[in-house]
Amino acid sequence: MDHLMEKTIEKKVLFQGQVITLRLDKVRLPNGKEASREVVTHPGAACVVPLTDQGEVILVRQWRHPLERLSLEIPAGKLSVGEDPLLCAQRELAEETGFQAMEWHHLFSYYASPGFCNEKIHIYKAYHLIPSEARPDEDEFIESLTMPLDEALEKIQSGEIFDGKTITALIEVARQK
Amino acid sequence: MDHLMEKTIEKKVLFQGQVITLRLDKVRLPNGKEASREVVTHPGAACVVPLTDQGEVILVRQWRHPLERLSLEIPAGKLSVGEDPLLCAQRELAEETGFQAMEWHHLFSYYASPGFCNEKIHIYKAYHLIPSEARPDEDEFIESLTMPLDEALEKIQSGEIFDGKTITALIEVARQK
Repeated sequence: MDHLMEKTIEKKVLFQGQVITLRLDKVRLPNGKEASREVVTHPGAACVVPLTDQGEVILVRQWRHPLERLSLEIPAGKLSVGEDPLLCAQRELAEETGFQAMEWHHLFSYYASPGFCNEKIHIYKAYHLIPSEARPDEDEFIESLTMPLDEALEKIQSGEIFDGKTITALIEVARQK
Repeated sequence: MDHLMEKTIEKKVLFQGQVITLRLDKVRLPNGKEASREVVTHPGAACVVPLTDQGEVILVRQWRHPLERLSLEIPAGKLSVGEDPLLCAQRELAEETGFQAMEWHHLFSYYASPGFCNEKIHIYKAYHLIPSEARPDEDEFIESLTMPLDEALEKIQSGEIFDGKTITALIEVARQK
């Protein structure tokens, strides 16, 4: 595969934020030319499709500043450094919905946008929900709502659900049924 | 929904690249506090699941510098400013695989990572492929390969396919069958 590989010549950090880091790297292309590459690094995220015993799904509504609009999504959160993605998904489910789940399955993990970013997203589904002691973050403003899976799938088609991880997770759960 | 909304106080551009722009914004939270928001803006992308008359899918293998590894993906490309996503998907299919398609369907469009980025990805599927005059970009190193859809789905489960748009598009095509 050498005819496809780029060789990294330089990695230069331009910005180190609370969430992301921006780098401007230099690479050597397979044809010998140099090229620059803008790279965003991100700690990764975990998310979960919480399914009730009635086959409904619990979603959360929250403000997404990059889009300056509200978004309807599955519960999710950023990974802390070195955190197990499953523990992260379990924590976010409790914080965002007030439920914990007795049964968890990993669906898959993927890179959201590998052209410029290394963010890896881990997707789970969870069954047998029981109330948890919800501990929402003080500065996180979220409301949860429950709906049949079919209604959520319709909201993908209508465009009301437009978050990538939510769409991917819901259609995979629908495909497995 | 006012109890969930953030009010944008300031948008400050920190870096303007060839592909992405980095901003550090200030917002007013629903509880009146100020918070900072790291935002990456991206022109968006279009991609396509090209299906042969035998029900196979054409994928492309390319180097992804942010991961420093090769990735197996559906044909895709960044939008030019103001570009119609369908025309972008058609151009990328021809450039990356040497095929054009007679029939196109839009599956859905989604935001890849709305927590920090406004990148919108438009997904199509395309049938009735015929050879096109391939015009690959001079500095783009890509090879295409064709496989049964089921084989591609297995590569999602095994982790060999790990690109978000590719996973989302392939499982949606599988679900529609």
